[in-house]
Amino acid sequence: MTVKIILDTDPGIDDALAILLALASPEVELLGISAIHGNASTAQVTKNALAILELAHATHIPVYKGCDVPLVKAPLLSPETHGGAGLGYAQLPEPQTQARAEHGSDFMIEQIMAHPGEITLAAIGPLTNLALAIRKEPRIVQNVKEVFIMGGAIQHAGNTTALAEYNTFVDPHAAHVVFHSGMPMTLTPLDVTYQCIFLKEDLERLLKINSPITKFIADSTRFYMEFHDEYQQIDGCVINDPMTLALTFMPEICDYRELVVDVDISTGVGLGNTFADFYNYEKKKPNMKVALGVRPRLFMELFLERMEKLANSLRDD
Amino acid sequence: MTVKIILDTDPGIDDALAILLALASPEVELLGISAIHGNASTAQVTKNALAILELAHATHIPVYKGCDVPLVKAPLLSPETHGGAGLGYAQLPEPQTQARAEHGSDFMIEQIMAHPGEITLAAIGPLTNLALAIRKEPRIVQNVKEVFIMGGAIQHAGNTTALAEYNTFVDPHAAHVVFHSGMPMTLTPLDVTYQCIFLKEDLERLLKINSPITKFIADSTRFYMEFHDEYQQIDGCVINDPMTLALTFMPEICDYRELVVDVDISTGVGLGNTFADFYNYEKKKPNMKVALGVRPRLFMELFLERMEKLANSLRDD
Amino acid sequence: MTVKIILDTDPGIDDALAILLALASPEVELLGISAIHGNASTAQVTKNALAILELAHATHIPVYKGCDVPLVKAPLLSPETHGGAGLGYAQLPEPQTQARAEHGSDFMIEQIMAHPGEITLAAIGPLTNLALAIRKEPRIVQNVKEVFIMGGAIQHAGNTTALAEYNTFVDPHAAHVVFHSGMPMTLTPLDVTYQCIFLKEDLERLLKINSPITKFIADSTRFYMEFHDEYQQIDGCVINDPMTLALTFMPEICDYRELVVDVDISTGVGLGNTFADFYNYEKKKPNMKVALGVRPRLFMELFLERMEKLANSLRDD
Amino acid sequence: MTVKIILDTDPGIDDALAILLALASPEVELLGISAIHGNASTAQVTKNALAILELAHATHIPVYKGCDVPLVKAPLLSPETHGGAGLGYAQLPEPQTQARAEHGSDFMIEQIMAHPGEITLAAIGPLTNLALAIRKEPRIVQNVKEVFIMGGAIQHAGNTTALAEYNTFVDPHAAHVVFHSGMPMTLTPLDVTYQCIFLKEDLERLLKINSPITKFIADSTRFYMEFHDEYQQIDGCVINDPMTLALTFMPEICDYRELVVDVDISTGVGLGNTFADFYNYEKKKPNMKVALGVRPRLFMELFLERMEKLANSLRDD
Repeated sequence: MTVKIILDTDPGIDDALAILLALASPEVELLGISAIHGNASTAQVTKNALAILELAHATHIPVYKGCDVPLVKAPLLSPETHGGAGLGYAQLPEPQTQARAEHGSDFMIEQIMAHPGEITLAAIGPLTNLALAIRKEPRIVQNVKEVFIMGGAIQHAGNTTALAEYNTFVDPHAAHVVFHSGMPMTLTPLDVTYQCIFLKEDLERLLKINSPITKFIADSTRFYMEFHDEYQQIDGCVINDPMTLALTFMPEICDYRELVVDVDISTGVGLGNTFADFYNYEKKKPNMKVALGVRPRLFMELFLERMEKLANSLRDD
Repeated sequence: MTVKIILDTDPGIDDALAILLALASPEVELLGISAIHGNASTAQVTKNALAILELAHATHIPVYKGCDVPLVKAPLLSPETHGGAGLGYAQLPEPQTQARAEHGSDFMIEQIMAHPGEITLAAIGPLTNLALAIRKEPRIVQNVKEVFIMGGAIQHAGNTTALAEYNTFVDPHAAHVVFHSGMPMTLTPLDVTYQCIFLKEDLERLLKINSPITKFIADSTRFYMEFHDEYQQIDGCVINDPMTLALTFMPEICDYRELVVDVDISTGVGLGNTFADFYNYEKKKPNMKVALGVRPRLFMELFLERMEKLANSLRDD
Repeated sequence: MTVKIILDTDPGIDDALAILLALASPEVELLGISAIHGNASTAQVTKNALAILELAHATHIPVYKGCDVPLVKAPLLSPETHGGAGLGYAQLPEPQTQARAEHGSDFMIEQIMAHPGEITLAAIGPLTNLALAIRKEPRIVQNVKEVFIMGGAIQHAGNTTALAEYNTFVDPHAAHVVFHSGMPMTLTPLDVTYQCIFLKEDLERLLKINSPITKFIADSTRFYMEFHDEYQQIDGCVINDPMTLALTFMPEICDYRELVVDVDISTGVGLGNTFADFYNYEKKKPNMKVALGVRPRLFMELFLERMEKLANSLRDD
Repeated sequence: MTVKIILDTDPGIDDALAILLALASPEVELLGISAIHGNASTAQVTKNALAILELAHATHIPVYKGCDVPLVKAPLLSPETHGGAGLGYAQLPEPQTQARAEHGSDFMIEQIMAHPGEITLAAIGPLTNLALAIRKEPRIVQNVKEVFIMGGAIQHAGNTTALAEYNTFVDPHAAHVVFHSGMPMTLTPLDVTYQCIFLKEDLERLLKINSPITKFIADSTRFYMEFHDEYQQIDGCVINDPMTLALTFMPEICDYRELVVDVDISTGVGLGNTFADFYNYEKKKPNMKVALGVRPRLFMELFLERMEKLANSLRDD
């Protein structure tokens, strides 16, 4: 049985890889993509999503534009991490298709309410669209099957401030809404994603196949690898988002703990800090499952195989 | 020429009076009412809005349900001010009509985008619906004619905490979104509304007319007067909301200053504090007009005349 | 009977005037001056205090150096208001006397504990010294006679940020310690001091006397008047500090309310905001008397007469 | 060469063990003890310090009372962790000696300024005394040899809130002052102390010696072990403080990193959170060495040997 997925995403290099992984995975039925500001502007990431679908010959997947700016905070984009257009050195042709008229958050609401208990949401960008949907139609909380979130840094250092991970720092108030919503959630924080490094040899393995897919992966990740090398002394690049997508159908990649997790929305140095109350001082019921252990090569093998398969189906030669 | 108004409201005793004033005023074309949590739950205030329209024989005005809870904060209702059902001692019959299916924030978006530059919004409850609309469709900022907001306490003491007025305290994050949106705004803070006291003799004047309208006003405001007497030593009751509505067509009731106004969304004692930067230390462009002076009896005469007219048109005898 | 006063001060132009007023007033027995960072560095304001005492032939008054920086926050000086050396265009000779070895806060403790119920503290700069004294010797709370504080802006706009007055903004944490200490306090906020303008004609009246005192007042206030003109469109200058000193022996200059006053020490826009809980939502006992009404000319006449007397006793001709 | 140490402490069970370790260690010259609120009131912990010195026949060590309450926050004691009198089930005789008249923070200042570059401070309670000393005499920053601090939780969960360690949570503002002071500092956070468990078999080994010292250790730690079992599912008890003391002469117990460490003094959920900027996003110079790795048994063997030696020197039989 396939997992019916709505992918809420801000492509972004590793978001693009998550889209490709979804398309390459028979376990996934991708219902649509809602675009969200983050790695680049909403206009840009919407265009990117369309272009990636065209690259992968998957223009039947509908794309919806979402929110332009965070719920409360001023916007923060990240050209230094993902390049000005969000996809590193990759230059995809201007897409021929267009986003649908409906808003991304309305698409979520409509699908979840139409298929109660069936829709899985993979939210791999800032959570603005999802927070908006929860506030507009609170009943999606009871009717969504599960939400997989790429975000947060529980015990790991932040990748944006000392304490905060990027997606959560960009829209901490939206994360607060989602974390407190009561939805069934699984969080994939930096604690696990930073152990999943896409290495240069992984890239070389893919490049044995001559395909627009492998070329795109090479061009986009090259930029990302340079960033990781300069800022964080990581040799290769962390691909947070495809791992979150993979957990929707291969949960055994990670080990989980049920925890009370919250996000700091104060105005101080902790803004955007996601933290777990490990000793449960507050005596609350856990609000999510948190991936705290990971089998990195189990994921990476999956990712590489699926990319090879996709690349082979679209060879240049 | 009439003012085309959407009334975003949480009736609420003084909200009910604002609805009646809109119905009684030929200057106003009331396009619809969007209901918002605040004085009572959204379910309750939606029912109240419908019941008030039935009371005034105005069931052609559509009512839309809005958000159930604030944008980010936990909800806060005010049964001690407005009674458990929101209308004091008034007990209106269960309404025979129903709210429309569309969400209140979508109604705002649809009307504003369909009639660029024509729609005036009178927002007299917490600003959650409006904030949601701005985040979903940012273009309403350029297309709304003007927004009149009942909220805030600039130099006046708060009516909920030492520093915060009720509507703003209930949803400070929504107020932050609206205040920073760039919309043309006029704010009616407690600084002016607390000078507009509906006195017992005002009530007696209305009660000379035997009408369901005057009976409703008497039953609802009696509760409100008791509250004001107990908590704030005011003899009579402050009717914040109808004054805001009145300003949409009779601006001369107040004097205004163009100011930079902000709202505190930190986690400390200032949460919900609305304040003006009178000396403009931040060197910003004013973001709203603020009513800081008022001619209370000019408003009150208008209000009483209009209520008399409405009551007379619906006499019991 | 005279009032035994310790003056905690950061001279500073209006602080200098407060020192002169204390020296010129037979009602005051000035026990000593503790210097505190604020209008200029502690080293500078200590030197200024010594120089002013020499100017007024009052070198028998001991001066004590106090804290160099605020209790918790980073320091903030105000050369744009008081000039680089803190006394505007006035240039006093390098003082021949020196500060005593003891720390300002220890001087407060020692005097208050040695003379229980007799010592009045006039604190007209940031409250760091007093906060330190309270933390080191909590028994001064019960043994001080009264504390007069120049600081805060209750309903008035701030003079440093939209919400904060300078002394409180410089060290909000110290103000928090003092406000919550339980000491008998009288606050003189901007609400009253901004009504006490030292006008050009007041200066001209003083200048009829040829004396180093009047020359100093002219040179120092000229700078201050230029500041007030440029930043706050005030014609003349606000002399906050001498009015606070005057209240120690002429309380009828102001009208007071007993109120619960607090200061915001959060990290947001409200930092340093002093506010009263006028409706006492928190059901606390008032912690201070607040001057909210003032008879400006009653104070100004006192000030001018005393300056004339002092100037006459030290004429140049 | 011995280490000249001032021990700033709130005994407290593990503080008592740190005092005993200092007395039992020939590497340490204990100049004096300054008492600080924390595990119990300052009056109580001062009495406890005196009683422990009497127990160990070390009444020549002077004890100084310090601050009664935190720098800014309201006080927080911890009877549930350390028992009502701070020493678990141990009941020491009323001390016959008394604290000196001088304040603990003045003792620090006097010693550090009298012996520039020679004094090591071991601060194992809330940092109020040290913060006060820094504000009163900033020159101690340049003249202290080194400060060893027990406090904080860098990547480890807090032991008081989800994010905050006890000493830091009790007085975050004091920690802020110290962390930003520029003193040479070594931090011993929960990350290492929680790996140093004093086990029941460790206690049994000590109890082979019949001595008031071993009886005291048994009575005090029994309470502590019950606490750790109930709240944190730890079998044995964490003895944070003696390990910090041990590092002053046996640094090889831990591994260190030079890091930029800060503490959250906002008013939100992060209050008291100590965190390191591992990627140094803020481009600052490291302000302390942080113990992040530990050889627990190396420390525990040292501790047990020293306690055996002390116990043997004071046998009952």
